[in-house]
Amino acid sequence: MGPQTSYIDLLIIGAGPAGLAAAYWASEYGLDARVIDDKPDRVTKGHADGITCRTMEMFDSFGIAGHVYDEAALDYQIRYWRFNAEGRLDRAQSINSQAAEISRFQQCLLSQGRIEELLEDRISRRGRLRVERDVETLRLTLHKRDDPSAETHPVQVTVRQRGGCMGDDNVETVRAKYVIGADGAHSWTRRQLGLTMRGEQAPHVWGVIDLVAITDFPDIRQTCVICSEQGNIHVVPRERGMVRLYVQLDGVSLSAGLRSEATLEIILSTARKALHPFSLECARLDWWSVYQVGQRIADRFSAGGCVFLVGDAIHTHSPKVGQGMNVSMQDSYNLGWKVSGVLKGQLQSHVLETYETERRPVAESLISVDQETVAFYAARGDNIATRDLQCFRERHYAFLSDEGNALIYAPSAIELATGIQLGRRMPSYRVINYADARPTELASKLASDGRWGVILFAGDLRKATQLRRLEETCAALLRSRLLLTQGSSKLVTITASSRDSLPLMGLPPLLYRGENGQDRKYDVVFSDEPDVYGAFTDMYAKCGVDGEKGCLVVCRPDQHVGFIGSLEDVPSLDAFCTGIFRDSYM
Amino acid sequence: MGPQTSYIDLLIIGAGPAGLAAAYWASEYGLDARVIDDKPDRVTKGHADGITCRTMEMFDSFGIAGHVYDEAALDYQIRYWRFNAEGRLDRAQSINSQAAEISRFQQCLLSQGRIEELLEDRISRRGRLRVERDVETLRLTLHKRDDPSAETHPVQVTVRQRGGCMGDDNVETVRAKYVIGADGAHSWTRRQLGLTMRGEQAPHVWGVIDLVAITDFPDIRQTCVICSEQGNIHVVPRERGMVRLYVQLDGVSLSAGLRSEATLEIILSTARKALHPFSLECARLDWWSVYQVGQRIADRFSAGGCVFLVGDAIHTHSPKVGQGMNVSMQDSYNLGWKVSGVLKGQLQSHVLETYETERRPVAESLISVDQETVAFYAARGDNIATRDLQCFRERHYAFLSDEGNALIYAPSAIELATGIQLGRRMPSYRVINYADARPTELASKLASDGRWGVILFAGDLRKATQLRRLEETCAALLRSRLLLTQGSSKLVTITASSRDSLPLMGLPPLLYRGENGQDRKYDVVFSDEPDVYGAFTDMYAKCGVDGEKGCLVVCRPDQHVGFIGSLEDVPSLDAFCTGIFRDSYM
Repeated sequence: MGPQTSYIDLLIIGAGPAGLAAAYWASEYGLDARVIDDKPDRVTKGHADGITCRTMEMFDSFGIAGHVYDEAALDYQIRYWRFNAEGRLDRAQSINSQAAEISRFQQCLLSQGRIEELLEDRISRRGRLRVERDVETLRLTLHKRDDPSAETHPVQVTVRQRGGCMGDDNVETVRAKYVIGADGAHSWTRRQLGLTMRGEQAPHVWGVIDLVAITDFPDIRQTCVICSEQGNIHVVPRERGMVRLYVQLDGVSLSAGLRSEATLEIILSTARKALHPFSLECARLDWWSVYQVGQRIADRFSAGGCVFLVGDAIHTHSPKVGQGMNVSMQDSYNLGWKVSGVLKGQLQSHVLETYETERRPVAESLISVDQETVAFYAARGDNIATRDLQCFRERHYAFLSDEGNALIYAPSAIELATGIQLGRRMPSYRVINYADARPTELASKLASDGRWGVILFAGDLRKATQLRRLEETCAALLRSRLLLTQGSSKLVTITASSRDSLPLMGLPPLLYRGENGQDRKYDVVFSDEPDVYGAFTDMYAKCGVDGEKGCLVVCRPDQHVGFIGSLEDVPSLDAFCTGIFRDSYM
Repeated sequence: MGPQTSYIDLLIIGAGPAGLAAAYWASEYGLDARVIDDKPDRVTKGHADGITCRTMEMFDSFGIAGHVYDEAALDYQIRYWRFNAEGRLDRAQSINSQAAEISRFQQCLLSQGRIEELLEDRISRRGRLRVERDVETLRLTLHKRDDPSAETHPVQVTVRQRGGCMGDDNVETVRAKYVIGADGAHSWTRRQLGLTMRGEQAPHVWGVIDLVAITDFPDIRQTCVICSEQGNIHVVPRERGMVRLYVQLDGVSLSAGLRSEATLEIILSTARKALHPFSLECARLDWWSVYQVGQRIADRFSAGGCVFLVGDAIHTHSPKVGQGMNVSMQDSYNLGWKVSGVLKGQLQSHVLETYETERRPVAESLISVDQETVAFYAARGDNIATRDLQCFRERHYAFLSDEGNALIYAPSAIELATGIQLGRRMPSYRVINYADARPTELASKLASDGRWGVILFAGDLRKATQLRRLEETCAALLRSRLLLTQGSSKLVTITASSRDSLPLMGLPPLLYRGENGQDRKYDVVFSDEPDVYGAFTDMYAKCGVDGEKGCLVVCRPDQHVGFIGSLEDVPSLDAFCTGIFRDSYM
């Protein structure tokens, strides 16, 4: 008897952060999907830990930001230590970890395993998608067009559930419409596709150790870069009182026998020397490893238009910039809604081509920032004393917090909203609920639920002409393809005039009408006015939108801005939709 | 065979909000306690719904504020509608529901049943205490001193589990050291004790209805007072799109047949007339009732030093000021830690006498605010047009948000902290974590875990003299009874000097040393300095504490300030402790 064959929409290979971010979308869209992982258990210790503010915003849109924030070590300030003129280790600089006002969240640190657990919990609350572990992948075949089932399910992956006792009965053939390979730096999927990584091997070997430390080093709960004559180490505070130390290991090269207790001793003793005269005792060892990661990038991110790679499978680099897990999850955040939208019959399949065009530049920036960072930190003693960490970090602030850019957008009148960057995440500010005066973060209306966001900056409705313009915009939107697509978009209105200048029911009914046409939504119209205590974020000014005339902004399901136009630009929006939505869906 | 007898520390009769707030403490202290309720099921609809900011702070200290806030309707603004000169209903005034800067939380509305559910969930996460429902109370006996078991378990309550099939086997005698009667306005416990309620019957009958409304009344999502010629109604926004309407019913008196469909019709038609010309349709009826509640207060709050009444069992009043559930839970918040502390052998039993001395003035204020409010709102037409709602509300702001005052405190040097009121809740502001720069709400360090809070305003530690004073204070605290009581207090330090002016390890070790003496706590020392982005709450100034000299503040387990002294006043603190803690415990 041959192996059993099953047919599904999407197979995700790898249940790390990138695989789970893809699984989030699959679950949210209700796809017939599976997530398999080679390992028998979830990672519980070590590995990645850095979470940027943009990732926090993504977590917020998933509904798990509160959990992450409650547990994580928040990272406010980086401190830079070096030898002073008297030859003593001294604090040379303190800089903010993150630029001011770049996000409502602060970057933070939490172990990869815990993040995976929170993502899995979130996914399992939504539907029936569960991670299948201890599943070995045997073969991946891309079917040709002449195969009868190729057109619907062109990818065939043979897998084996380990630990069974039924021999071949544990082998299964999975036929999938799409496959996402999220299986890490040594990606099996990538090798099956014959894709290669290009780049450099790293010059240095680093040790990394997670421990509960007892020390009189005063900055043990902050991110620190310590360049001492005895060696370079980085300090990264972690959850539950732990700290991670990155230790540069000179004269060590990676070989078979390296991951031994002897190496742990070398890491600890190097760290102690670098921290001298401060003490360092290990109260509890949680995890340790050594690595020598080069900066490499895959020659292609996909194959056959139906197998896509995400995360470490397409870019490897040092952990120095704390970006790995972030960029990996954001690969999936970008790809997942596109694959889901195509599978659901909403989107034209050419949209999938934008995955690589959008994410390759990010991967390349990541590699180049990483190269600069490794070189910067590898310098020693006097050499580094003259460098300015602040200047160095500032050059990368934007990338560190807002990586990713989107290419699916219409040619737009971007001068209408100079504070909103087409192709970037939609900025979020507090606006005032029109119905109940509650200050509300705009982002809370743009949760990652698969819908596009249509944000109507309605302008100053005290003027009869502006109200008429708005009414015409609403009439045009009612005829528009995007909004007519049931449930595919959510409409949010922000007036520049105050709540009291015009009652909610004075606005065009499209802006607040409920599902059955008779009831009203009281949580979709906002005013850009001070809250009852006088605090004012002035969103129109921050977004560079004219307070009289307003404008129209459309966000993709991943909160990236796809369209900016005037209230009269609904026809352009329609053209934009025609280019990416399927006719049958519209 | 006679009924089974069991012996427990504490029996709580009634599992409404007041009973559950008492149960919270019982669970947190790990008491051998039981909570019984007469009704077979938890209330799911109607009843109380108002939550003041002080109750939110209490919920925060229980760890459930986030859940409440996520679901509740937040109340920012009260709007007052009356007939204008042209005889049309018109918005006359908008006032803030809550004074500015009074709390980090906003008052809000959520159904009593959901609050009970959240409290029960919280309690069940901590230990094994569960609510026993459908338990009928038959007899309560206070034993005399000559009864052999009276001294340890002086209260005997005979109860019967309903729904059983074993006749007398369902009857049980519970012998308890203490009983808390939280069984509502018609309290069985109060009647068993022979206590009486004194006060007035209310002049008006009101109807109350929870519904999902379809209306063009523009303020349907805000708290409104509507005084129309057709009748007085109050609008209260609620969770899940519901709204509560209070409707004054003229010419109706409460009689046996009143709670009929006919009455529902009267409530709705009266509301419609009052709202004219705005429409009012009921899309879904959730609950309705009629009431005529007088303002009454029990002649005593306890009996025999071992049975205590809380909540509606000791004070009834109209729902107009939205205080009932709040004052009731705060009765228990005040009583519960005292009973628990006595049962745990920490506190001297005379502390229990402070329950009534502290809570009776609150109940009396509640009654008097309620009387004024009912009279204010009962006025009509032109009569009310000249009244100023703002002035009226402002007189009660402090009570509405910070009811309760504590009497257990030492004679203190209150001029040392003019912004901290002895006997009131400890104010909370954001301070900066000394170890990792994270802005932290002081209240997060004062969770309701049964421990006393010792807050050391350490002053300006750049001055050697001040550091020496602090070292002497720490030496005195180490000899002090309160701190020597293992686990009964938590020490929080707030410096006026910046984090960078003195490393953490430069402070006296008492302030940061961990449990085993070798490890360090990195979450108990803070600096009153701007955060890394420059935002500054200036806690010293807000608390009126001298930035050079500091002071010493002690909070009870319910966050009320019990002691304010100079850094040299540890002997006074000791005397305070000697007066309330048990010798054997110290």
